[in-house]
Amino acid sequence: MNRRHTLSLFAGAALMPATPALSRDTSSDAAAVVAWAEECQAAWADADAERMYRTAADDLEWINIVGMHWRGKAAVIEAHRIYLTTMFRGVPNTFRGIETLRPLGRDAVIAVVRWSVGQFNTPIGTVVPAADDRMTLVFRRTSAGLSLVHGANVQIDARAEASNPVRTPG
Amino acid sequence: MNRRHTLSLFAGAALMPATPALSRDTSSDAAAVVAWAEECQAAWADADAERMYRTAADDLEWINIVGMHWRGKAAVIEAHRIYLTTMFRGVPNTFRGIETLRPLGRDAVIAVVRWSVGQFNTPIGTVVPAADDRMTLVFRRTSAGLSLVHGANVQIDARAEASNPVRTPG
Repeated sequence: MNRRHTLSLFAGAALMPATPALSRDTSSDAAAVVAWAEECQAAWADADAERMYRTAADDLEWINIVGMHWRGKAAVIEAHRIYLTTMFRGVPNTFRGIETLRPLGRDAVIAVVRWSVGQFNTPIGTVVPAADDRMTLVFRRTSAGLSLVHGANVQIDARAEASNPVRTPG
Repeated sequence: MNRRHTLSLFAGAALMPATPALSRDTSSDAAAVVAWAEECQAAWADADAERMYRTAADDLEWINIVGMHWRGKAAVIEAHRIYLTTMFRGVPNTFRGIETLRPLGRDAVIAVVRWSVGQFNTPIGTVVPAADDRMTLVFRRTSAGLSLVHGANVQIDARAEASNPVRTPG
């Protein structure tokens, strides 16, 4: 886990009001989420969708930035395989860090992580400028470590953010 | 729980491949999520943000369709209070049903629900046409019932959906 990601995590945790007492697993959960994201980034760069979701659960579901909802690991991999080899070929996707991280009881973990995605062209001809995304990630605890069960990705509209009525300081 | 929502839930559940055996709580979880959404819809129509999140956890976080990330129940309520009394005043928001619903171990539940939102104008002058949203909702189990801890909302781009490479049948 590099220093930048660590700092980002603790900045996020410090900004979360009323955070319940974190379990003793929080630092290892953070390391696991960072490892997941770094593997995801490397797999994206290699256009390897199977690698991206190798440790995910069979009942994985994914919602992308335009609201497509893929259900089941095979569907999530196939959709990413198609896009990584077309629309996203050569488009950089860089992990920026964990914004929030919490246990969900004993058996699951939820994180919000941030990515920077380069400009790309959609299949219907729209040019999507470079932007950051906020990604909700939900993992199940398994004997082999955290296993992804849900991802939902929202593109950050920088113009809208300038008028955010309740901005998180920092 | 009305019939339409029930049907929507079971349609979604049937489409999820490799769904693990659901706990005996699934039908009551579904009823609780529908009750949450119906209360949320009524509170939205009344521009009552406090009512919308009355049963939510203190560490609630929310990501809206343009990627604003509000952390803590007070921040989520304040942001919605501002938007419900300005940008969303008089804009209909209609719950369409549960698309997927799963327990996250013993202590939490995750659902994806669908809403239809009417046209609105943003503070920076953008006209956002009527559209459906896919909303990820994560709840903690408490002695008082399900308590919302995370929401992330993605607007469905109908033009993009027409080129979805892996569409869920039905």
